[in-house]
Amino acid sequence: MFYTGCRFHSGLTKIMTKKNIKINFREKFEKFSEQWKPKVITELNDYQFKLVKIKGYFIWHNHEKTDEAFIVIDGKIFIEFEEKIEEINEGEMIIVPKGIKHRPYAKTEAKIMIIEPKGIVNTGEILDKLTAPNDDWI
Amino acid sequence: MFYTGCRFHSGLTKIMTKKNIKINFREKFEKFSEQWKPKVITELNDYQFKLVKIKGYFIWHNHEKTDEAFIVIDGKIFIEFEEKIEEINEGEMIIVPKGIKHRPYAKTEAKIMIIEPKGIVNTGEILDKLTAPNDDWI
Repeated sequence: MFYTGCRFHSGLTKIMTKKNIKINFREKFEKFSEQWKPKVITELNDYQFKLVKIKGYFIWHNHEKTDEAFIVIDGKIFIEFEEKIEEINEGEMIIVPKGIKHRPYAKTEAKIMIIEPKGIVNTGEILDKLTAPNDDWI
Repeated sequence: MFYTGCRFHSGLTKIMTKKNIKINFREKFEKFSEQWKPKVITELNDYQFKLVKIKGYFIWHNHEKTDEAFIVIDGKIFIEFEEKIEEINEGEMIIVPKGIKHRPYAKTEAKIMIIEPKGIVNTGEILDKLTAPNDDWI
């Protein structure tokens, strides 16, 4: 009842997350080390909450049909827009409006949470070496 | 362009929040002191992000048509379900599934963020002294 995730992980381990069980961000971040690979931790209706570790520059991209929320859990990130750069620290968030070109980056590894509708590809319309598997649960 | 909020506040001050400007949770929490009165800080498509200070017991209620996300920014909260109580601390979150009866409470004041679709009333179907104004921006 109320399972938000039900995926086969690492071949054998089936991960199930009940919606009405609390989630600890630190514990979830300890479960992976790759950068720029969003990991789904739960769902709110048809939206997903994803944790990501980022360092270095992402690519310029946009999401044609949806806004995207970035919440910084640990560290500092930057989001470059065509006309400015926003610095976002732990305890801060930003909404990137739909259709707006942006490029996230971090000088040292930062831990962030992204909230967006299910099915959104991290690089938008662009296929890149940074394009990550979708719907990857931890 | 990309305004998420445009409200008349305190009679004269017009508050506008651009979607692509970062939001600092601590600064927003300093702008109000009432408990159990959710304050909208931004929007993601047709969802709202709301900050709330809570202390004591809320009422039993549910939201028939939507899940509800609680993220604890500062302190500790409890969410009582019919079969159990979940304790949620800073750095943790929980999704309350749609239709499920729950009662949030906090022993000392806690600061939380709620994410849910626009138009959701905090007490669900129930009209109570704790029913808060909707769409109240800071």
